[in-house]
Amino acid sequence: MPGRTAEEMAMDQKEISVAEFFEKNRHLLGFDNPAKALITVVKEGVDNALDACEEAGKLPHLKVNIDDLGDNKYEITLKDNGPGIVKEQMPSIFGKLLYGSKFHSRKQSRGQQGIGISASVLYAQLTTGRPAIITSRTDENSETKRFKLKIDTIKNEPEILKEEELEDGFEPGTEIKIIVEGKYLQRYHSVDEYLKQTAIANPYAHIEYSNPEGEYFNFERVVDELPPEPQEIKPHPYGVELGVLSRMLKGADSNKILSFLQKEFTRIGRTSAEEICTLAEVDPDKTPGKLKHAEQERLLKAMQKVKIQRPPTDCLSPISAQLIEDGLKKEINAEFVTASSRDPEVYRGNPFQVSCGIAYGGELEQKENEKVKVMRYANKVPLLYQSSSCAITKALEKTDWKRYGLEQPGGNGTPKGPAVIFVHLCSTWVPFTSESKESIARYPKIVKEVKLALQEAARDLRRHLSKKQRGKKEKRRKKIFSNYMPLVLENAVELSGEGKELSIDPIMQRVIDEELVEKADQGDEDE
Amino acid sequence: MPGRTAEEMAMDQKEISVAEFFEKNRHLLGFDNPAKALITVVKEGVDNALDACEEAGKLPHLKVNIDDLGDNKYEITLKDNGPGIVKEQMPSIFGKLLYGSKFHSRKQSRGQQGIGISASVLYAQLTTGRPAIITSRTDENSETKRFKLKIDTIKNEPEILKEEELEDGFEPGTEIKIIVEGKYLQRYHSVDEYLKQTAIANPYAHIEYSNPEGEYFNFERVVDELPPEPQEIKPHPYGVELGVLSRMLKGADSNKILSFLQKEFTRIGRTSAEEICTLAEVDPDKTPGKLKHAEQERLLKAMQKVKIQRPPTDCLSPISAQLIEDGLKKEINAEFVTASSRDPEVYRGNPFQVSCGIAYGGELEQKENEKVKVMRYANKVPLLYQSSSCAITKALEKTDWKRYGLEQPGGNGTPKGPAVIFVHLCSTWVPFTSESKESIARYPKIVKEVKLALQEAARDLRRHLSKKQRGKKEKRRKKIFSNYMPLVLENAVELSGEGKELSIDPIMQRVIDEELVEKADQGDEDE
Repeated sequence: MPGRTAEEMAMDQKEISVAEFFEKNRHLLGFDNPAKALITVVKEGVDNALDACEEAGKLPHLKVNIDDLGDNKYEITLKDNGPGIVKEQMPSIFGKLLYGSKFHSRKQSRGQQGIGISASVLYAQLTTGRPAIITSRTDENSETKRFKLKIDTIKNEPEILKEEELEDGFEPGTEIKIIVEGKYLQRYHSVDEYLKQTAIANPYAHIEYSNPEGEYFNFERVVDELPPEPQEIKPHPYGVELGVLSRMLKGADSNKILSFLQKEFTRIGRTSAEEICTLAEVDPDKTPGKLKHAEQERLLKAMQKVKIQRPPTDCLSPISAQLIEDGLKKEINAEFVTASSRDPEVYRGNPFQVSCGIAYGGELEQKENEKVKVMRYANKVPLLYQSSSCAITKALEKTDWKRYGLEQPGGNGTPKGPAVIFVHLCSTWVPFTSESKESIARYPKIVKEVKLALQEAARDLRRHLSKKQRGKKEKRRKKIFSNYMPLVLENAVELSGEGKELSIDPIMQRVIDEELVEKADQGDEDE
Repeated sequence: MPGRTAEEMAMDQKEISVAEFFEKNRHLLGFDNPAKALITVVKEGVDNALDACEEAGKLPHLKVNIDDLGDNKYEITLKDNGPGIVKEQMPSIFGKLLYGSKFHSRKQSRGQQGIGISASVLYAQLTTGRPAIITSRTDENSETKRFKLKIDTIKNEPEILKEEELEDGFEPGTEIKIIVEGKYLQRYHSVDEYLKQTAIANPYAHIEYSNPEGEYFNFERVVDELPPEPQEIKPHPYGVELGVLSRMLKGADSNKILSFLQKEFTRIGRTSAEEICTLAEVDPDKTPGKLKHAEQERLLKAMQKVKIQRPPTDCLSPISAQLIEDGLKKEINAEFVTASSRDPEVYRGNPFQVSCGIAYGGELEQKENEKVKVMRYANKVPLLYQSSSCAITKALEKTDWKRYGLEQPGGNGTPKGPAVIFVHLCSTWVPFTSESKESIARYPKIVKEVKLALQEAARDLRRHLSKKQRGKKEKRRKKIFSNYMPLVLENAVELSGEGKELSIDPIMQRVIDEELVEKADQGDEDE
């Protein structure tokens, strides 16, 4: 039989750079098709800009511009008023995949992996062959640096084509300009919609946007204060795994297990540390790096058995119910808006928190027979794609919307009605189902929290709807009354032989009032 | 306002190794939960073993063993009779992510990325802290090498704990032994099922398997010949992108564009190459590395305009209709089995081919009211998860199964009935929706081909079902005839005054036969 030998096969074995990997698998990063690619580029840029502004304590002001260059090519320019980037870091941040500051940090941010923006540069050079142009200035007293760069795909390293210092007039911040093959659409999945949804969830940001058709959008700031900056936390003992613990032990600064536990984990004080050591039968004075495999295993088990407080939640930056209400009211002229927010929860040691909002009626009435529009967010970033695999969608579909006054054919699935449902999940580590970050993995704990948040808001909606319903009923009833009652009363009056001065209005009003009070009482009871 | 400066932020910027990335994002590789993790480890090992055996021209013989070590730990041992691995390559193949031989090759194989097996090693050390043990011997005349290794996650490099030479008795081939945290389940999503489905699609492989409950399965070889080995091809001009073309031009061996085009692409002969140069207004004698951006753009456009033959398909190793029938018959005792195979097609320059099979009735009858069981395959590997996002599922749900005799409530979705539907797609590059390779992206061209293949097989099913239906009807009709006809005939005979010797059986038989022939003719026409 013919065939190759081990020696022949060995010749083909080689290392694949992560840039080559993602170039070939670019659909994993959201570059599946030209329309989505255009959104992804804007999204990655906006994510980074908002993160940078917030971290620097600056109220974000973003300018996004998309020019149609014809032939399916678009030039995207994104300028922020953030802290800028020191020149030594500029090439790597934009020209190297898996390079960033947020991967190892345990606090909420939009970016996580250090892939997104360099992947956009990669996609640009793949489809149009054009380099990215990055300009940045850290403050009024410093120079403005500009790089023209590509990515050396084989090495996953930036390839600098031009480096220059600009004369003047560049407002501090960072600007990226890239040219990609794309497709501009105006519909639910569009850059316009993406930025609108971003504005709703980030009401302290001012976003100006010119689309390829030359239309200008000004999403103004609604709130003049940044939310409190999320604080970085240490890992929680319940979420750590043996391999990670083992690595931490090896690299530990502390020379005793007792101090190692207190220093490297959140919520472990001296008492818990001692308790863990005792339970694990590990000498608390032992050097961390010298623990044997069996001791490490026992230590991990003990860490997960001892009762330890939940992680602190100042690492999160939730969107409060109030902010959601304000955001929805600003963008949608609805008849009724409500919002709710849950307490923080934990999955696999990662804190997370869910809030949601519902807008109903008003300008939405025209969509009465359509499914409600769902806006999904993770860490303040709108999720436009892959809704079917998302924890938010699952929770929404499992909610019994009929109970709350919305139609839901078949008893499950997305409800119908003139409403918008907004759901936000924030976490130090959102479990996305793919690198393109479009959908949240369906951890039961997450699905449950989303469902509870939805039910809370939905109860407000029900109250509103039944009040409205009663209002309508009474109006109709009153109309019938006012049509027929005068006649009846007139006849009654005539029959009774009394004079005609008797007014019928106060009588009717009393009948209606009494019934309303009674119904409102019933409504409260069936919560 | 407080906040950090660009200089402070720069301190946090750093490179993330691909091993760290996938350790944290291990759900992307199929390690979402313990039950799936166990399957993923077996799958990655089996994929590699089958690929290696086939490439070496050896009929595969695999031994898979899973031991329950208690405490949610399982030891997985997989031994193959493949070509073995030269010792210099052993550490990198198992201890480095994105290292492999198949990433750049354009021919069908199970593995693609050089991630799977090292990710299993990574998962083992993360969850149990235990190293992998790899043993390999290339042939009877060479030494047996054994490595005990982990992965240095920060560097994405193998960390060799022990290296030794074994004395004797190791049959040539490769063995991997790893211990992972897992969960063993016996149901649709299980290692048992995975290996059963693998055996069906790889009837030339012999797979022995002992599960954690100590049960032994022997999936014997049904075919004693390997399929023709797929041939490697060059990229097709229709599927190339500017960035890739640009890189190819830079690194070209040829010193003229004319020869570059013929040498580096499939299906470009001298005539097409000249035609492309003329259309692109590029000098055919120019050195490839010296083409300017605009020339590269024109060249690419011309390459995609000139009429060029489809790529050759000997790079594919489809499963023939005959093999599918044999495989289904071997594993399922059905009343009827059929299969179909389409001609190769091309998406984005990548050749692909679809075949499918249907088994109906027999032992499946007991599942009459359930949905049919669907077996999805890509490059001979069963896909157990994420069916809802898969091109195969989409095509299946869009097929009108009522037309073919299966129930399909609501007119779409997976049909009901006592059937198994088998679909195989092979390609030089299967567009999986995630690194875990569980689902095929829904390219319209792929969905269409799957649908056509299904319809072909479904027509056979319909023929079978209507024959069966007619059989039943006629039986019933004959019964009615035989109950009443004698009486009618007797009376008729009596009325006619003839003698009673007249036999009625031949008359009835003739009536039935004639009708059957007529119906069978109609059945053929409505194709």
